Amino acid sequence: MKANIRKKFTAALVAAFLMTTMTQVYSDEGMWLYDDPPLEQIEAKYGFRPDAQWLEHLQKSSVRFNNGGSGSFISEDGLVISNHHVGAGALEKLSTQEKNLLADGFYAASRAQELKCHDLELNVLMSIEDVTERVNAAIKPEMSPEEALKARREVMSRLEKESLEATGLRSDVVTLFQGGKYSLYRYKRYTDVRLVFAPESDIGFFGGDPDNFEYPRYNLDISLFRVYEEGKPAKVEHYLRWSTTGVSDGELIFVSGHPGSTSRLITQDELIFARDVSQPYVLERLNRLEVLYMAWAERNEENARRAHQAIMGVQNSRKAISGRYGGLLDPDLLSAKAAAEESLIRSMKASPEFQGSVVAYDVIAAAQKVVARNYTDYRMWEGAQAFNTSYFGIARTLLRHAEEKGKPNGERLREFRDSNKVSLELGLFSEAPIYEDFEMLRLCDALKFVIGKLGYENEMVQKVLAGKSPEARAAELIRGTKLKSVDTRKALYEMSAEEIEKQNDPMIELARLVDAQARSLRKLFEEQDELTRQAHDKIAKARFALVKEHTYPDATFTLRLSYGTALGYEEAGQKIPFQTTVGEMYAHAVAHKHQPPFKLPESWMKAQEKVDPSTPCNFVSTADIIGGNSGSPTVNRAGEFVGIIFDGNIPSLVWDYAYSSKQGRATSVNSQFIMEAFKKVYGADELAREIEKGKI
Amino acid sequence: MKANIRKKFTAALVAAFLMTTMTQVYSDEGMWLYDDPPLEQIEAKYGFRPDAQWLEHLQKSSVRFNNGGSGSFISEDGLVISNHHVGAGALEKLSTQEKNLLADGFYAASRAQELKCHDLELNVLMSIEDVTERVNAAIKPEMSPEEALKARREVMSRLEKESLEATGLRSDVVTLFQGGKYSLYRYKRYTDVRLVFAPESDIGFFGGDPDNFEYPRYNLDISLFRVYEEGKPAKVEHYLRWSTTGVSDGELIFVSGHPGSTSRLITQDELIFARDVSQPYVLERLNRLEVLYMAWAERNEENARRAHQAIMGVQNSRKAISGRYGGLLDPDLLSAKAAAEESLIRSMKASPEFQGSVVAYDVIAAAQKVVARNYTDYRMWEGAQAFNTSYFGIARTLLRHAEEKGKPNGERLREFRDSNKVSLELGLFSEAPIYEDFEMLRLCDALKFVIGKLGYENEMVQKVLAGKSPEARAAELIRGTKLKSVDTRKALYEMSAEEIEKQNDPMIELARLVDAQARSLRKLFEEQDELTRQAHDKIAKARFALVKEHTYPDATFTLRLSYGTALGYEEAGQKIPFQTTVGEMYAHAVAHKHQPPFKLPESWMKAQEKVDPSTPCNFVSTADIIGGNSGSPTVNRAGEFVGIIFDGNIPSLVWDYAYSSKQGRATSVNSQFIMEAFKKVYGADELAREIEKGKI
Repeated sequence: MKANIRKKFTAALVAAFLMTTMTQVYSDEGMWLYDDPPLEQIEAKYGFRPDAQWLEHLQKSSVRFNNGGSGSFISEDGLVISNHHVGAGALEKLSTQEKNLLADGFYAASRAQELKCHDLELNVLMSIEDVTERVNAAIKPEMSPEEALKARREVMSRLEKESLEATGLRSDVVTLFQGGKYSLYRYKRYTDVRLVFAPESDIGFFGGDPDNFEYPRYNLDISLFRVYEEGKPAKVEHYLRWSTTGVSDGELIFVSGHPGSTSRLITQDELIFARDVSQPYVLERLNRLEVLYMAWAERNEENARRAHQAIMGVQNSRKAISGRYGGLLDPDLLSAKAAAEESLIRSMKASPEFQGSVVAYDVIAAAQKVVARNYTDYRMWEGAQAFNTSYFGIARTLLRHAEEKGKPNGERLREFRDSNKVSLELGLFSEAPIYEDFEMLRLCDALKFVIGKLGYENEMVQKVLAGKSPEARAAELIRGTKLKSVDTRKALYEMSAEEIEKQNDPMIELARLVDAQARSLRKLFEEQDELTRQAHDKIAKARFALVKEHTYPDATFTLRLSYGTALGYEEAGQKIPFQTTVGEMYAHAVAHKHQPPFKLPESWMKAQEKVDPSTPCNFVSTADIIGGNSGSPTVNRAGEFVGIIFDGNIPSLVWDYAYSSKQGRATSVNSQFIMEAFKKVYGADELAREIEKGKI
Repeated sequence: MKANIRKKFTAALVAAFLMTTMTQVYSDEGMWLYDDPPLEQIEAKYGFRPDAQWLEHLQKSSVRFNNGGSGSFISEDGLVISNHHVGAGALEKLSTQEKNLLADGFYAASRAQELKCHDLELNVLMSIEDVTERVNAAIKPEMSPEEALKARREVMSRLEKESLEATGLRSDVVTLFQGGKYSLYRYKRYTDVRLVFAPESDIGFFGGDPDNFEYPRYNLDISLFRVYEEGKPAKVEHYLRWSTTGVSDGELIFVSGHPGSTSRLITQDELIFARDVSQPYVLERLNRLEVLYMAWAERNEENARRAHQAIMGVQNSRKAISGRYGGLLDPDLLSAKAAAEESLIRSMKASPEFQGSVVAYDVIAAAQKVVARNYTDYRMWEGAQAFNTSYFGIARTLLRHAEEKGKPNGERLREFRDSNKVSLELGLFSEAPIYEDFEMLRLCDALKFVIGKLGYENEMVQKVLAGKSPEARAAELIRGTKLKSVDTRKALYEMSAEEIEKQNDPMIELARLVDAQARSLRKLFEEQDELTRQAHDKIAKARFALVKEHTYPDATFTLRLSYGTALGYEEAGQKIPFQTTVGEMYAHAVAHKHQPPFKLPESWMKAQEKVDPSTPCNFVSTADIIGGNSGSPTVNRAGEFVGIIFDGNIPSLVWDYAYSSKQGRATSVNSQFIMEAFKKVYGADELAREIEKGKI
């Protein structure tokens, strides 16, 4: 049965790839740009056409969590809802050995009780401006990749700085269509973010790793924050009204959020690179880290608390990437990509205007070869995977900041451009705790990792080890560094490169030791990226002209609009209903004898009599999402909040490479489940009232 | 502090390597041959000289568990004691979804309740005969490696067959000193082995992975079996008397067991191969399997039961090999090896008789290079790690048996020699359950593993995948094979190669597909092994002649005698007492809030009032052991059973490469703890009585 379904699924993939040559039957595919929404498709399929006001309202109610997630305003007083797993990093940083907010949950019944997060930055997209022509005008055909890269970096930094100075808004030039389009995104930035509510992790992540990316599902995967300005709750013009009626089977829904990254427009060669190089490497590392962290966490409760977020992150990535890698190993996926590519190349060759652009595929292939050859070195030295400790990141930022700050804005490494200063300092000066024992464990293992991957005798490895065992070297680096103190970091941040060198901090000296090689690898990779961008620009132009379909760029952690239907599916001959209930949640715990990770928190066990078992719990839809969409609001035609995205099912994991709604689904927490929890389980009546009123 | 200890520890290592050039100060190092015991050393240090009768009694009371452990007779009625973790495989095979013997424990109060194990073979060493000259006489200097290998295989198989026919005893020619010595070991073989007693895994492996290889420790890591002959308990002449007084601080103890493998006599090049090639490979695979099995086990209780033994095995290896690998990455270990090697080479060069043998080091280095180049291929195809399923092993055994059985005994692959027939069939026709879902999981992952390691486009990988995704291919192989039925296996076992081919069993066809390549890799590796043996023979002869120390060969899973002192040690400035108590065991559970793996079973919680908290629990000694020694009896001068080896501490993990008693310790369960458990916790009065009387 499974093979059969897979075959049908793959047929759908081929169809998706070849759609361009067929009569248009709109699927719900697409992570659409807000300045280019698929109004015709939506109207054709659903008879509903969002107007400009509707779109602006949803756009400005949407919030980006800069640690990698999404959210939305749900009250005019700056109340933001996101996922528990998006807020988890902030929760962990606010926790101590005595007070574990992540495990035990939190509720601030009054403003005064709200807890300020250490280093959380939230962004709201205020405007989009197409700057493709201005960016590309800086690139001349005769430029070498190095010159082109420099010119592009310079023009992007300049546009951003001008915009920041003119508007005061965070301004990012974002690359779309792999380099086929550039847009200037302006965000309102919030850095005073306070924790309002979080449930216990046992209900936030009920079912744990076994249920992660699976369905049916029963998670209260939410956390609530409030943004402040000048010490007071921020007043926001746009926020979502709460739906008390939820969502019905087959209903049209929209998702507005920040999908992190997809690879649907990449070429066959780039897909093969992912299959043969990057994904196996990443999975090997994740397996290694999962074992390392789990074994350490099992030793005692405090270790478990300290490693909790790291474990969640690693397990989530491992399961997501395993699913994606499984897709890559399905030969049908590559055949479909090859067929689509051949078809476009045929059209290009037949076109006098675009036949010269066919060479773009060879350029990309050549760049991929360079990247593949240097991939491990790049990951180790520039990616710093040879030094898996927060202190190394801090050390390198300080070292490079001293070197970069003297350069003109447009010539600096991207993260040191003026327009990124606030975000950079927020992370660097964070008072979030870093645990010496956990850092030692991670660094020591990372040193063994680089030994294993590059070889013990590798010249740089030998320099890094300095004649010591990984244990001894990790101990001397972690114990010796003075970067534990935020005041020290602040002092070093003001110093010149020469002054920093005199400090003799072992971690900074380590960063210095590898920096020439790291920078040179980064330059090499950025040049390949530049070549690839130019090539994709050519391909994109040809596709726009020859295929004439309305399409969307790959995800880039910028705001996108998706839409779809609340809809169940079939698996192994079984119908999976679109929605679960709270009663089924309790039954799921019973079926697993309440054993972790299927143990419900005490609050829910106590409230079982009060809670209505028919309350909708989680639901799935065909909306096109990916990692980064976590926390995105799911809204109905009226623009009301009916749920919040927190996951996709297993068949959706291959959406990185190709969308199909045969079985793939996005999973949301229902708005009714959330309200039932506030009122019947947590006694969060104040919060419920604020959400229902739309203000405090 | 840690670095300081390490330095001292390493100084001890250097001393161990260079001992030959120093005045003899006997450490407790050594896994001694029973036909060459270190009587002088023991007498010099402890004033006790075991006589021939004492040694014979201990030898013949010692039992080898052929699944990789040790044990001993403790009653004349064939009662054998080993570790819980040695018996765990047998326990798992006897378990069902309804009756989990591994988790819940087992006690047969009468003979009739004893459970026959599926495929456990126990051996008792009856005699040792030096056959070095007869083996080496078959090898002529002018022979190619291929010819020498063939000649050596032929003479070994002939000696074994002659001995088997003459004595009826299992007869193995074993290689010692890496090829410096050959001995014929004759064993009494028991294949009717019945389960008598096992505690719950929560006390058998109390503390789980976090406490594994650590000390202080509190494990009742025991299981008891009885060997039968002709349907009745076997009468044995030699068995160990039980000590009721246990062991005291500083007391001399002996350990008699089967250390699996050490690498103390290997050359620098072989050590570097382990550091750079084999150990990183093995650890990568173990990390991968641990994540795979753990994630699957977490889904539900039955999965957890099915994967339990696989997880235990993987975690145990991961922790042991991580420790060993850590040792290899300590530059001092390699410097010490280099210094010892240079010293011997200097002596060899100065000796007219041995200067020609110096070339042996180059021969080994060259062989290691060939092995390194082909290592992954060898592991995948001949080691069958590309197909991590029991069915593949069965399929290949059937395929090769059909091909090998027609050849003369001496020309067959070693496992198909006549003298191994009983053991081969015991495994092949075992009724032990194999679970389709778990096999599917393992095979599918193994296919991805080989894709990752050898590349998707690798010719053999492509043949193996047959145009399908790993999921689809694994499903068709596991679902399609008929080898689930033992009757089918028996029928195929009788067939000719041609008849088997006609069966079209997909798993056998897979085995056939890779067999030419697998056999050719095996041949290549066996030839390198032959070259290495000859070279080690030369080095060993030189060492014996020039160094004149009394020494012992590396471990080879043959019976060895170790000795040492029950002795605590210092760690990070803290004194660790030699012995723990039952009271401390309860306190350990409390300190971890009774959370798994620190949860004691109900039986022990209920019995807490009855149990004497001052009862000795586990103790450490300086006896030289390694994996395979698990279950070895620890005896006192009187030859009485005072404990049973079940582990070594973290500093002992490097003993693979070099012994040091600075901190390294072997860990035993005390005999008194065991008796307290039988009488006060399990109501196993019959069993206690038998052990105290030495008979039923």
